[in-house]
Amino acid sequence: MELNQCINYLLTTSQHKVFQEISRRLEPFDVTPIQYGVMHCLWKGEKTTPKEIASELKLENSTISGILDRMEKKGLLNRHVSIEDRRFIEVVLTDKGKSLEEPILKVIDDANHDILASIPEKEQELLKKNLRILAGLEEA
Amino acid sequence: MELNQCINYLLTTSQHKVFQEISRRLEPFDVTPIQYGVMHCLWKGEKTTPKEIASELKLENSTISGILDRMEKKGLLNRHVSIEDRRFIEVVLTDKGKSLEEPILKVIDDANHDILASIPEKEQELLKKNLRILAGLEEA
Repeated sequence: MELNQCINYLLTTSQHKVFQEISRRLEPFDVTPIQYGVMHCLWKGEKTTPKEIASELKLENSTISGILDRMEKKGLLNRHVSIEDRRFIEVVLTDKGKSLEEPILKVIDDANHDILASIPEKEQELLKKNLRILAGLEEA
Repeated sequence: MELNQCINYLLTTSQHKVFQEISRRLEPFDVTPIQYGVMHCLWKGEKTTPKEIASELKLENSTISGILDRMEKKGLLNRHVSIEDRRFIEVVLTDKGKSLEEPILKVIDDANHDILASIPEKEQELLKKNLRILAGLEEA
């Protein structure tokens, strides 16, 4: 099998290229793509514990802790003991973290549009669907 | 935009899942997916300098050096000064590295088949083509 037929090689190289592009566009906000993913969870207000965020982003529980540390140092979020259930840590955006929602979502929207522009529009949804299947996010 | 519509999120999560699966299957050979990529270049015999291998695998030149170090320690390859042009380092497989070609290619073939099995056959080539476009490996 040629490397450019191997699904692992193709996902690794395309992910690398797209990740670089998104990183570059998020740089002015001093935010990495993964930190954007964390804020996305919090902007939506649905996933608010480190464990839920890690699960949504498919990160190991050991990884999320370091990411939240760095984001807390940057003043994007704080961690509190949950008022509803004191066994849980709850992650809460700061005003700075909240204020980034609109400009960052605009940048991500534009980036997605530009990155996918080289793929015929009717194939874009199929590509996303098949990636969700490979990621285990959607049933085949 | 929902995360599961974001191309960076979809590539990152699907790459992670597929990479884990390939890693698991290569474990009996004590070889990582990236080390497999390096050996693939050498089995083909086309890319033999660290720079060429790095370019083929879309790795930074600084990354390839550590990978080759570890592979040399494992007895998979050696580095020599090129006989044809003494300015270049040439990477050469050991007998152990050569002997892994057949069993590893079989494992990779099977893994690709199984990973893609959840995607309709006629969509598999389109998926690969569009990933090559995103990776910059193929013109749109």
